[in-house]
Amino acid sequence: MSKKVIIVGGVAGGASAAARLRRLDESADIIMLERGEFVSFANCGLPYYIGGTIQERSKLLVQTPESLKARFRIDVRTFSEAVSIDPERKMIKIESRDRGAYEESYDDLILSPGAKPIRPSIPGIDNPSIHTLRNIADTDRIKELVDREATRSAVVVGGGYIGVEMAENLRERGLDVTLVEAAPHILAPFDSEMVVLAEKELEEHGVRLRLNSPVQAFRVAEGGIGTVVELGNGDSVTADIVILAIGVMPDTGFLQGSGIQMGARGHIIVNEHMETNQPSIYAVGDAVETTDFMHGGQTAVPLAGPANKQGRIAADRICGLDSSYKGTQGTAIIKVFGLTGASTGSNERTLNKLGVPYHAIYVHPISHAGYYPGAKPMSLKLLFNEQGRVLGAQAFGEEGVDKRIDVIATVIRLGGTVYDLTELELSYAPPYSSAKDPVNMAGYVAENVLEGRLDVLTVNELDGIDADAVQLLDVRTVAEYGRGHLDGALNIPVDDLRERLHELDRNKEIYAYCEVGLRGYIASRILSQHGFRVRNLTGGHKSCRIASFTPSLEE
Amino acid sequence: MSKKVIIVGGVAGGASAAARLRRLDESADIIMLERGEFVSFANCGLPYYIGGTIQERSKLLVQTPESLKARFRIDVRTFSEAVSIDPERKMIKIESRDRGAYEESYDDLILSPGAKPIRPSIPGIDNPSIHTLRNIADTDRIKELVDREATRSAVVVGGGYIGVEMAENLRERGLDVTLVEAAPHILAPFDSEMVVLAEKELEEHGVRLRLNSPVQAFRVAEGGIGTVVELGNGDSVTADIVILAIGVMPDTGFLQGSGIQMGARGHIIVNEHMETNQPSIYAVGDAVETTDFMHGGQTAVPLAGPANKQGRIAADRICGLDSSYKGTQGTAIIKVFGLTGASTGSNERTLNKLGVPYHAIYVHPISHAGYYPGAKPMSLKLLFNEQGRVLGAQAFGEEGVDKRIDVIATVIRLGGTVYDLTELELSYAPPYSSAKDPVNMAGYVAENVLEGRLDVLTVNELDGIDADAVQLLDVRTVAEYGRGHLDGALNIPVDDLRERLHELDRNKEIYAYCEVGLRGYIASRILSQHGFRVRNLTGGHKSCRIASFTPSLEE
Repeated sequence: MSKKVIIVGGVAGGASAAARLRRLDESADIIMLERGEFVSFANCGLPYYIGGTIQERSKLLVQTPESLKARFRIDVRTFSEAVSIDPERKMIKIESRDRGAYEESYDDLILSPGAKPIRPSIPGIDNPSIHTLRNIADTDRIKELVDREATRSAVVVGGGYIGVEMAENLRERGLDVTLVEAAPHILAPFDSEMVVLAEKELEEHGVRLRLNSPVQAFRVAEGGIGTVVELGNGDSVTADIVILAIGVMPDTGFLQGSGIQMGARGHIIVNEHMETNQPSIYAVGDAVETTDFMHGGQTAVPLAGPANKQGRIAADRICGLDSSYKGTQGTAIIKVFGLTGASTGSNERTLNKLGVPYHAIYVHPISHAGYYPGAKPMSLKLLFNEQGRVLGAQAFGEEGVDKRIDVIATVIRLGGTVYDLTELELSYAPPYSSAKDPVNMAGYVAENVLEGRLDVLTVNELDGIDADAVQLLDVRTVAEYGRGHLDGALNIPVDDLRERLHELDRNKEIYAYCEVGLRGYIASRILSQHGFRVRNLTGGHKSCRIASFTPSLEE
Repeated sequence: MSKKVIIVGGVAGGASAAARLRRLDESADIIMLERGEFVSFANCGLPYYIGGTIQERSKLLVQTPESLKARFRIDVRTFSEAVSIDPERKMIKIESRDRGAYEESYDDLILSPGAKPIRPSIPGIDNPSIHTLRNIADTDRIKELVDREATRSAVVVGGGYIGVEMAENLRERGLDVTLVEAAPHILAPFDSEMVVLAEKELEEHGVRLRLNSPVQAFRVAEGGIGTVVELGNGDSVTADIVILAIGVMPDTGFLQGSGIQMGARGHIIVNEHMETNQPSIYAVGDAVETTDFMHGGQTAVPLAGPANKQGRIAADRICGLDSSYKGTQGTAIIKVFGLTGASTGSNERTLNKLGVPYHAIYVHPISHAGYYPGAKPMSLKLLFNEQGRVLGAQAFGEEGVDKRIDVIATVIRLGGTVYDLTELELSYAPPYSSAKDPVNMAGYVAENVLEGRLDVLTVNELDGIDADAVQLLDVRTVAEYGRGHLDGALNIPVDDLRERLHELDRNKEIYAYCEVGLRGYIASRILSQHGFRVRNLTGGHKSCRIASFTPSLEE
């Protein structure tokens, strides 16, 4: 007898599960329930359709109920909402626009209900000009407004991935855009001293940033045109349209009373086989808590890549294959106008929270050989532990950032170390990289730190140092020094250092720095071999300049 | 007492070794001998300077004797050729333009003499219009000729990396260019059915290809203007300038009689510490044979990346650090006009030669989400063994090829499998990739093959099949079928297949195909579950079209 599988939710994880199920089992009855009108749409593309980069709405519809029916014999039921589950009887209750309420039995059930935007209960939240973006209907609504002549300004609340993408896309449409973020910085997966690069890029493209600005209330502007967003500091911003993008929560309310185990924030708890605690019920995608690949704790990462992989694994298990999900490492990427930011693994905030000891280094290499045109600078931060295990990486740049983060993500996945980074044999020709790829370079610096050949100092550690207790040494050229240097730094260009050692105080530790860290490293090696105590500022003066960028808080 | 290290050769491996030595040992006496005028120049950039992409000659000079002196206290001696070595006495004999012949003692010796272009002894080889490209002097000479009005045509002999780069760059300068290759295809690291993509790109940009065309002789054209290149087939090509780029050989003649062990083709034999068989003598770069990371045999790979890494390792060893070189996996990349080709690991030719069993699959994904503008198709071939170990990969495309090959190179380096490819969590947002990255996709296909869920057939296996013994089944749409299909193929679109199974002969094996392999896979799953014997053409009709491209042999 053929088995009957019901899938709740037809996007990403649900759609992947359905297709895989059919490929593995030609005879299964597969029913897909989708609350909305659309299945398998390009949710990651929605901001770009609003922004006009994606011009045809039809491109957002990757699959349709008809195409899933024709190719995979999926019984797709749109406008059909799962309202409750009875694991004992293996029954699911459905509210259908067309058929009303009814029950359906299942042999196996895959839950892929996704997440929904958080709408905090603050005054004025029900103002109709406050929009969230999650599906095609939201997109149509926002786009229709943005297309209007009269819509000239927008406030985006929330500086996560969707918030930043919306800010960029609304700006591309010519709107006056303010991005409001409660935390001191946007894009939480990045550490503060890195993410300032994205903040700078946003400001340079005309997006006003209001950091440290929790929203207190929304109200209709006087005269009735526009919405006033009141910020925590007594300030306010007024705009024609408000996009609320402060995060998502699992859309799992219908599971209350089902006996399915849920996490503190409403996520479905699953094991490595995507199985819930209830027999024959699987869950995948944005609604589940999975294992963090990095530290083994619980995590919820609402991203398309993991959702697709999990859907496939649930289907495999239903068909008797031994697949498992080994956890999410949080690899993510974002385009911010001309800049790309990407990260993988843990950041410093997470490591500190977990009490995991780590080293941090920075390099600022160029995307390919400097003598070949078009090379662009990038900033790469690498986190690793005393044994050399790679714990995380973050990068920003105009070119080749995705490649380097993907390579490091691969090393992390395979349990590799910074020593592996030095040995990777990556593709090199002048248009693509350097003979020592930025990933190799980061590995070399990390290796030097671990082997005790280089004592590094991060920009954060520079804060509040006692200028009398240490000697700040700028080893760049006189011209570079003249264009800006750290307060109180002595300038001895690295090429002159050996002749001018007598100018340094042997009783003080030297904090050496150059532009990006390389000459500082050479200077450190010279100095330590001449008996000085020396630390090199990792990432050099460039890291200081990046970290000290403060987006304007005033308009 | 400080140690005295002599380095023979000041480019790539030699320069890396010198800088590393100084960073590790401030007191060492470091002497660098360079036969030519320049050290540490951008050898990979030379074709692009001739082609005009790199406009300033000074950009080719990465370091100068003066800069190495100032920063690293290297005693750089240009126009100084090592002529013999006496390992017993630890002495090296030098012929210097300025100082004449003299001897120098060493504590440690690093040999980085590089390789030189092969000039076969065929008639007319001494014709002055036949040029090889290896250093700055060669570059100046060729560029001066190309800059002349009268230089209108070129023949490039040899379709390796340098030959193809020169063909492209001469074409960029507007010359009439013919690329002559003795073998059936150019760019030997790629298998034939992949490299046709590069051949097509060259032809589309006006480079005439003469494959299967060994050069028999060169002679001065009648009238004295131009050189006639006589080909094996009785044909000939005449051009104003000839670039000979049929390969390189180690420049190790001066080591004869030194007692240093050499390979059959004159390469220096080293162990994993870059040590020769003679005490205190190390060798690195294009002149050495190293271990092939893939199969453990001996190999010689004249590439900048390995040379730089090896130089660093030799320096480490001299300074007492425990570094070793784990072998070269042959990762390489080339720009061919708008196309990028890259490969890593072994190709089919090598695996067949070694008698290593393998599976081959092809995918033709797009560089990023199809709904986001600018996505470009790529073709990716993956080789793996029965245990899933990744043996090699090759790819061509306009975008993102370097990234995917670098990720696979990393998996190979860390001993990963095709199962790892499926699990890699790579950075995804619509401008950069798809939720299932091309690398994940290749892993999924390979996994399906290994798990017996998919029996694939390669384009090569289609050759000479008995059309009566099998049923060719085209599962694309009627319109796609109409635009071209395999001879004798029956067309049943995949979406209609379940209703039309009765049209198929159960006694014959079915060879199914679609456009790129995905619908053919779905069709295969349907058919095999309905009791048919079926194989899916990996890479689909697109792989056939690519493989059947035959560059014109006639002008």
